[in-house]
Amino acid sequence: MKTISENRAFGGMQGVYTHSSEATGCDMTFGLFLPEEAESDPVPLVWYLSGLTCTHENAMVKAGAQKWAAAEGVALIFPDTSPRGEGVANHADYDLGQGAGFYVNATETPWAPHFKMWDYVTDELPRLLFNAFPLDEGRQGITGHSMGGHGALTIAMSFPGRFRSVSAFAPIANPTQSDWGRKQFTAYLGEDETKWAPHDATLLMRKRGFDGPILIDQGASDQFLDLLKPEALAEAMMQRRQNGAFRMQKGYDHSYFFVSTFMEDHIGFHASALYA
Amino acid sequence: MKTISENRAFGGMQGVYTHSSEATGCDMTFGLFLPEEAESDPVPLVWYLSGLTCTHENAMVKAGAQKWAAAEGVALIFPDTSPRGEGVANHADYDLGQGAGFYVNATETPWAPHFKMWDYVTDELPRLLFNAFPLDEGRQGITGHSMGGHGALTIAMSFPGRFRSVSAFAPIANPTQSDWGRKQFTAYLGEDETKWAPHDATLLMRKRGFDGPILIDQGASDQFLDLLKPEALAEAMMQRRQNGAFRMQKGYDHSYFFVSTFMEDHIGFHASALYA
Repeated sequence: MKTISENRAFGGMQGVYTHSSEATGCDMTFGLFLPEEAESDPVPLVWYLSGLTCTHENAMVKAGAQKWAAAEGVALIFPDTSPRGEGVANHADYDLGQGAGFYVNATETPWAPHFKMWDYVTDELPRLLFNAFPLDEGRQGITGHSMGGHGALTIAMSFPGRFRSVSAFAPIANPTQSDWGRKQFTAYLGEDETKWAPHDATLLMRKRGFDGPILIDQGASDQFLDLLKPEALAEAMMQRRQNGAFRMQKGYDHSYFFVSTFMEDHIGFHASALYA
Repeated sequence: MKTISENRAFGGMQGVYTHSSEATGCDMTFGLFLPEEAESDPVPLVWYLSGLTCTHENAMVKAGAQKWAAAEGVALIFPDTSPRGEGVANHADYDLGQGAGFYVNATETPWAPHFKMWDYVTDELPRLLFNAFPLDEGRQGITGHSMGGHGALTIAMSFPGRFRSVSAFAPIANPTQSDWGRKQFTAYLGEDETKWAPHDATLLMRKRGFDGPILIDQGASDQFLDLLKPEALAEAMMQRRQNGAFRMQKGYDHSYFFVSTFMEDHIGFHASALYA
């Protein structure tokens, strides 16, 4: 693992690191914010999974999360959204290929050899992080935006007991019924839709739910609402009597201005669970 | 109008008053809390509509609302839930007849002559209140519990511009699809279901929504969840992109312990809209 940069921020440290990944077969870069408390003891960790086109950097510089993480004493991990590099398959569309890993393990040509973001985010990266940094594996929360909200919700529900809390900003909530989902699942996982189901937050909510609190914010003026399908997940949450809140925020769109507006609430939400 | 009692409370005054109602053809009793600010100027008003079996008194003594209303400088009105008295029809079941007005105007025998709670709450009582007390008609919010949450939501959506905010605790959210609704609508309104539709919050949400913020809390351990149908309203709210939040609160049941726990949030929510 190689240190790209370390910058003092809000009394803690914002680092960027690169490592050679077995899961994706290429170098992967991530951002990690450690609050001041990490200098003496392991701290809780909140995962932030980013959306389409993003690298590790977008949320790290635009979400305004470090201020609240420092105030609450939690670390933040910002992984990349896909494998990258000249030897890695890509596509002309912004929503397929590099920058659009969708947090699945691709099985189809030409994506299979590198597009293993599920394994990377749920297995390889956590092992590396808990080995190398002062982070408390017993206290994790997870959040994300758009495609990253999809990732956060599906991962949280797929590993019961790993995360104490999950939240999402404008998640792709029902991808098996959306062009943000059907296109990518067909490309990465093939045409057998039974293989898509474990990667759909609404279907997972109907099937098993999450054993902790959930907070979801969605902008009412989001230009992608028809692709995000919040109504499907909201119904499934209430039908399951899932502990949580689904908020429709008047006037907000899909941008990081929306994310940063409600970041304080989300970090506070996770901190309440992680320091309970 | 006759004063039954007036008690100093939280720096303001909790009154109980009785008046002869034209709408219901009997005496009606209500509770009104005025904060200290009402001694000098008209104050905003929040309506609290109660649930099955309640009189004006239940919420007035059990919801813990006056403390927060005093802190925010808003008045609270607690109407009764039905006409009452020896000359008024009744039924042996707790969920029909006296204490179960359902906030509709009955058209059917034997309910029609007295069961006009829609007119009472939306027309007669407001006229009386704004005439007799220092209340600002331009700043109203409305909330309620269970059957009263149904009333609050349906009334708020039926009078665009009248209420700046609406909230509900465990509302009967989709009564045309519930035994809490079908039974009463059949009795009060007859078998033509087109006459029921204006009294179903989920159907009104699908049709028109509310031009302001909505806050709904529902207990996840509510013993009446199958009758309340929160999932139908949550889906309709998100489908409409309705400004608002739907919260499922782990471990809470249908009681006033649930209502009083979240009363601070609801009064604060209304105050934000009323003092904006």
